[in-house]
Amino acid sequence: MLPPKHRDFFKKLLAQDFEDDSAYLRAYAYDATRQKFLPDCVIYPRNEEEIAKILLYCSAHKIPVVPRGAGSGMSGGALCVSGGVVLAMEKYFHQILEIDTKNMLARVQPGVINKDFQKAVQELGLFYPPDPASQDFSTLGGNVSENAGGMRAVKYGITKDYVLALRAVLPNGEIIRAGKKTIKDVAGFNLVGLLCGSEGSLAVITEITLKLLARPKYEQVAMGVFARMQDAMNAVYDTLNSGIIPVALEFLDMLTIQALNQKFNKNFPHDAAAILIVQVDSDLKVHLEHQIHSLRTVFLRHHCMEFESEDEKEKSQEIWFLRRNASQSLSIYGKKLNEDITVPRGNLIGLLAGIEKISAKYGFKIACFGHAGDGNVHVNIMIDNPTEENLALGYQAVEELFELVIALEGTLSGEHGIGISKAPFMHLAFSEQEMELMRAIKKAFDPHNILNPSKMGL
Amino acid sequence: MLPPKHRDFFKKLLAQDFEDDSAYLRAYAYDATRQKFLPDCVIYPRNEEEIAKILLYCSAHKIPVVPRGAGSGMSGGALCVSGGVVLAMEKYFHQILEIDTKNMLARVQPGVINKDFQKAVQELGLFYPPDPASQDFSTLGGNVSENAGGMRAVKYGITKDYVLALRAVLPNGEIIRAGKKTIKDVAGFNLVGLLCGSEGSLAVITEITLKLLARPKYEQVAMGVFARMQDAMNAVYDTLNSGIIPVALEFLDMLTIQALNQKFNKNFPHDAAAILIVQVDSDLKVHLEHQIHSLRTVFLRHHCMEFESEDEKEKSQEIWFLRRNASQSLSIYGKKLNEDITVPRGNLIGLLAGIEKISAKYGFKIACFGHAGDGNVHVNIMIDNPTEENLALGYQAVEELFELVIALEGTLSGEHGIGISKAPFMHLAFSEQEMELMRAIKKAFDPHNILNPSKMGL
Repeated sequence: MLPPKHRDFFKKLLAQDFEDDSAYLRAYAYDATRQKFLPDCVIYPRNEEEIAKILLYCSAHKIPVVPRGAGSGMSGGALCVSGGVVLAMEKYFHQILEIDTKNMLARVQPGVINKDFQKAVQELGLFYPPDPASQDFSTLGGNVSENAGGMRAVKYGITKDYVLALRAVLPNGEIIRAGKKTIKDVAGFNLVGLLCGSEGSLAVITEITLKLLARPKYEQVAMGVFARMQDAMNAVYDTLNSGIIPVALEFLDMLTIQALNQKFNKNFPHDAAAILIVQVDSDLKVHLEHQIHSLRTVFLRHHCMEFESEDEKEKSQEIWFLRRNASQSLSIYGKKLNEDITVPRGNLIGLLAGIEKISAKYGFKIACFGHAGDGNVHVNIMIDNPTEENLALGYQAVEELFELVIALEGTLSGEHGIGISKAPFMHLAFSEQEMELMRAIKKAFDPHNILNPSKMGL
Repeated sequence: MLPPKHRDFFKKLLAQDFEDDSAYLRAYAYDATRQKFLPDCVIYPRNEEEIAKILLYCSAHKIPVVPRGAGSGMSGGALCVSGGVVLAMEKYFHQILEIDTKNMLARVQPGVINKDFQKAVQELGLFYPPDPASQDFSTLGGNVSENAGGMRAVKYGITKDYVLALRAVLPNGEIIRAGKKTIKDVAGFNLVGLLCGSEGSLAVITEITLKLLARPKYEQVAMGVFARMQDAMNAVYDTLNSGIIPVALEFLDMLTIQALNQKFNKNFPHDAAAILIVQVDSDLKVHLEHQIHSLRTVFLRHHCMEFESEDEKEKSQEIWFLRRNASQSLSIYGKKLNEDITVPRGNLIGLLAGIEKISAKYGFKIACFGHAGDGNVHVNIMIDNPTEENLALGYQAVEELFELVIALEGTLSGEHGIGISKAPFMHLAFSEQEMELMRAIKKAFDPHNILNPSKMGL
């Protein structure tokens, strides 16, 4: 509950764009983690100046402020863990302000949905590659704040690789610009780079300038089935070294393949230990075919049992169906604890071997699939009998997984961010001195610690 | 001159790797700006622990410390403007520690020369794209600190796009790691992004992990001569929108072409207003030819007078000779004041028109060439009679140029950084609040302001 003084201030400033009715508070209490923290109020800011006034007031009174896009984050970044104000950006910050074909860039407000933006630029022959799994509903502001990844990262990189410039409001109410509409800009510190992935804890982003590419004319999907994971991974390394840069290079493990067989009536061989799904693209048909031919050669060299490639849209979608429904299919094994971790791709085999040991130790099946091309694996610890005791054991297994990942020079999160979900594990990845440095940076932006406090373990 | 107490401390710690003989001080007093500031001593640190001890001591006694690679910077980043310690990295930090072909990355020390590194990875079929003009002598540590660009930025981006991870020593003597050996890493703030381009003012970089690509098998150069700059620029926009992503897309203006004619006995038509030089690459010969064919089509559509493309290495080098010697050829016009600025490439025509007005106002020839593909232009104000008075006028013209660039949504520096050269112009590009934020970040890393002080206008 907001003290009446604060309530009066907000109500006067925002009128009908201030809400503290319990229905609103409940609607903004959750995110994709399914955890729930009630905010004290919901604010729909109409412009930068209003955000400036709100932040200035909240700084003066030490009221937490949590900027929020679609609330689809997987690590709790949009949760009001200390109550306070939700700054809901979807109502007034959802415009594509400009698509500039000459400079191949766009200016957008943070509440624009990723997929809507992809479609808008596609109509002009342009291409915005970052495609997080949440692309149908997540916002570009959320994508920037979490530095979202996606399937296309192998060839096209991640969100930060497309952010040229930002406008943002600081906790002290100042409006800043960072970056320019240019690929090259080395004047001053790289504030754009720092704000990308800062999980809404440094500033409220109000405008994003994104780099666009020309849309590749052709794309094609291929799939290979392998009897040994080691062969599949060797095929991954050889593919990348051969000069092919696939758009996506995904893998499914044996447990996932068996779940797909069972759940969706597929017929993959029962001894299939790995499936690789590859997408390639080009502006030239024969170049596309060249890539598919090279892929086939590399895959067969590594004992691929079945190789399939489809240029028909429908059949391509059948292949992608497997990857997109991998997560869902795992429900046949029970409740899942799923973690998004990344290791250098050369260590994927070591990671999977370590995961097998954890599986044996705890007696839980652990199914893995994800982005083999960039070492980003979605690890699913399956609890067939989710008693409280078993879930507690499952979380122990998660902690062991994180220790394994760090030992293999990996990172706690490749895509989802730290938020609150992984905050307890930051000590595994960072020294106390590194945490202190991050706290000092946080303080430089937000001396009263009002912006999305208690996230990232800071 | 160092007080004897400090001198004794360093001498004891470093023995023969401490120098304060005047010959050494003079040798480390300059950089590519040709300005001169004598340090108080030169230190060749042998390892991270030694750097930690030096920084801790210098923090305690507020002694400036300037990390230095090859001293080839164009903006004074390596100059000891307040005396103090030069931390010369070339003696003990010049090893390529690891080239990992499976993960397509390398770990290097900051003193490795860019070109040596490019050659080393090329021998393994790999490719490190950033190629600043100083590549034959500049160090990777300097490249990271200045976030160096180069010719290949259109297709391949700039230094920051290749830095996966860093090790660095903070002014408080703590050794930190930032980033991982992975493309995706969203755990904690993006310290790697912040350290790239921080001009040695936040931390001393001791190790760099760089992303590598597979080396494209084929490359080819093409050249087009245009009678109107507007046609050439339209050809640039159409090329990029057509789906061709050239490795490099360079332009020369009329004054530069005439200088090349005169200095190197070339025969370009006297009415040639612009030359475009384009490099394309591919892993497939026919794809390369497709790109050249598309380029020719686009160029001819925009009234290109002569189109030439060469797959023979020797003839390619003749074309590149023009671009590489553009700067030198301008000496026929007198002494040059050269500035490296960038505008969104759609504003290049506006920039060149504005530059013509400045030229008319001051009566100086102004020759332009550079990276049309990314809007990064090297502007050369030519002073035929470099009296003190004329040079002062020249610097006035420079200031007007910067105002023009900012008005066209450009940046003070696309490649060279701010250092001291452009520090007086930071107020044109940044608000006082933005400068304050950068000062606060600097303070978070370096509370006693010892690391490369007085740079960037901070």
